[in-house]
Amino acid sequence: MKFEINRDELLDALNDVMKAISQKVAIPILTGIKIDIEEKGMTLTGSDSDITIRTFVPTEKDGEQNIKVVEKGSIVLQARVFNEIIRKLPTNNVMIETETGLQTHISSGKSEFKLIGSDPEDYPILPDVKDDNSFSMPSDLMKSIIRETVFAVSQQETRPILTGVHWEAKEGKLSCVATDSHRLARRLTSPDEMPLEPFSFVIPGKSLQELNKILPDNTESVEIIIADQQVLFKTRNVLFYSRLLEGNYPDTSRLIPDESKTSVTVNGRSLLQSIDRASLLAREERNNIVRFSAGEGKSIEISSNSPEVGKVEETIEAITITGEDLNISFSAKYMMDALRAIDGQDITIQFTGAMRPFILKSANDDTILQLILPVRTY
Amino acid sequence: MKFEINRDELLDALNDVMKAISQKVAIPILTGIKIDIEEKGMTLTGSDSDITIRTFVPTEKDGEQNIKVVEKGSIVLQARVFNEIIRKLPTNNVMIETETGLQTHISSGKSEFKLIGSDPEDYPILPDVKDDNSFSMPSDLMKSIIRETVFAVSQQETRPILTGVHWEAKEGKLSCVATDSHRLARRLTSPDEMPLEPFSFVIPGKSLQELNKILPDNTESVEIIIADQQVLFKTRNVLFYSRLLEGNYPDTSRLIPDESKTSVTVNGRSLLQSIDRASLLAREERNNIVRFSAGEGKSIEISSNSPEVGKVEETIEAITITGEDLNISFSAKYMMDALRAIDGQDITIQFTGAMRPFILKSANDDTILQLILPVRTY
Repeated sequence: MKFEINRDELLDALNDVMKAISQKVAIPILTGIKIDIEEKGMTLTGSDSDITIRTFVPTEKDGEQNIKVVEKGSIVLQARVFNEIIRKLPTNNVMIETETGLQTHISSGKSEFKLIGSDPEDYPILPDVKDDNSFSMPSDLMKSIIRETVFAVSQQETRPILTGVHWEAKEGKLSCVATDSHRLARRLTSPDEMPLEPFSFVIPGKSLQELNKILPDNTESVEIIIADQQVLFKTRNVLFYSRLLEGNYPDTSRLIPDESKTSVTVNGRSLLQSIDRASLLAREERNNIVRFSAGEGKSIEISSNSPEVGKVEETIEAITITGEDLNISFSAKYMMDALRAIDGQDITIQFTGAMRPFILKSANDDTILQLILPVRTY
Repeated sequence: MKFEINRDELLDALNDVMKAISQKVAIPILTGIKIDIEEKGMTLTGSDSDITIRTFVPTEKDGEQNIKVVEKGSIVLQARVFNEIIRKLPTNNVMIETETGLQTHISSGKSEFKLIGSDPEDYPILPDVKDDNSFSMPSDLMKSIIRETVFAVSQQETRPILTGVHWEAKEGKLSCVATDSHRLARRLTSPDEMPLEPFSFVIPGKSLQELNKILPDNTESVEIIIADQQVLFKTRNVLFYSRLLEGNYPDTSRLIPDESKTSVTVNGRSLLQSIDRASLLAREERNNIVRFSAGEGKSIEISSNSPEVGKVEETIEAITITGEDLNISFSAKYMMDALRAIDGQDITIQFTGAMRPFILKSANDDTILQLILPVRTY
């Protein structure tokens, strides 16, 4: 293997692949990055066995030659060291060559590195994912869906299935749900080319967080290809494979109340800032609970009390309040997460009493739903 | 106590004082900030008992009224919570009032906080530092002196005196020295108004690091006032007190060689980048050692070898090399710290053999000296 490459192109590709690299992997070769050189370009592969990321840099891009392939071949190099070396090379032109055995020569300007590589034959083979069960959506929509749901997955391994987000398609509609059993986030959407057959799978929250970092913030299409125990997200130059979680996701639809006794519409940003301030004192205690009261007039009162530190009370103006008077307590963190997911628009909160789950939606749009269980306080 | 204050002015003052606040203090009241309101303005005091920072906000500044004092008085409030509350208040106008007992009312817009304060009588009294032993220098010079020396203090408490920087004045000259016994940094300067009497004191490295964060990056004068066990740095609106270290600082002057067998002048930035790259592999081993060879011609060779990861070799062009051929090994970290302190200029390195300490200076200027002990390698 011998090739020259533009350092910035190599760094961009490395930057994506590094997101799959973990120092805590059971298979030692996965601390490395696999480099494959073919005539048409360079492929980098990184994996922690849950996530695998593969990037491709074509020999030519936009008429510019980025890679000069002298000899095809493959090698696996220690990811962290390789990445740091490339980052710090003195010139933008990098020559990489495998010599006798697995020793790999990296040179740039008057700087010469010799790294001990690993045998590419020992690197795990990527799962074979067939294209027959796939659909696509714009990258920025995918990023929104991830952002609006993934924060609500469970952080605990006691029910592993809840550490993932449930993607389910029926009749051309896609529903994405995450819950940690104290709160729930749901996003509905109708991508253009949904497969006719219904599907249902659960993607680990961690995979979606890494995917979100890699996806571009534009309308470029992302293809989603579903296999048995894997899902593949495919953009122009990046393949992102994630393991799927095994098991049945609980039926969450029956948790969502379909009636309400008190309905409050309020500016999301004002409410978020108010909860944030109230939680400053609540945070000092273990539970981080704030109290929310809606009653006569259009005022909402947010308060919190921490016996050793002090108390806070504030009033914010609602747009409308209808139905019964209400006093309810909930986790400030869950409320702030939900409000951030709905993101600053006017929001409607529908309560069915102080002890029942309540839901938050955008005032103008039903696609995002956030549900929170209140906390009993005496 | 009752006053109104412009939130941004309060935040600026808090930001400085917070640098003295530690959650790990033995005296509980020091987790608080003391607020003193007088007719002429507000004084904030924070302390971790090693460092004490006091800021003053005048009632009027540049013709603008920043504070409206309704009633004079003092209170101590939990620093972390108070700081976060002020940061998140909804308007730029803040009203603070102590009510019955120590309860303190903070309000802004429709947001109302009641914090449980502590008795200001319980707050430690600041040491009395008299002005008779003082000198001054511009703030930016002080920052340079700190940056060029403080990194070399010892991080170990085995010899506490070495965790500080030794400031010594003789005949109008100030010498600032730090050493951890493996390397040494020295900065000489001649401030305008040095006291006639010689002095010598050792300031904790940690104090200087915090002071550096507070000092402005301009030529505003900083007055340095020396007392028995304290030093006070005084700028227009900030008083920074630091405890001094007790004990005798070792005589370091005899460590500095006054002859050299090999002298190398080289661009500091090129050498720094080269050592940085070589240390990428050295870091994987415990010791982080790189090898430096200067011999025939004007080339320096930097190399490093890590049996399990690989090796690196590179050549950089020196400006001049005079004297004996040399092969020497040293800590990449110490070399990089020293080169960063001298900061990118052409530098001269003077060696007296592979087993003797060597010194680095700017090629044009003797005020900064860095000394490093080499490492024996076989």
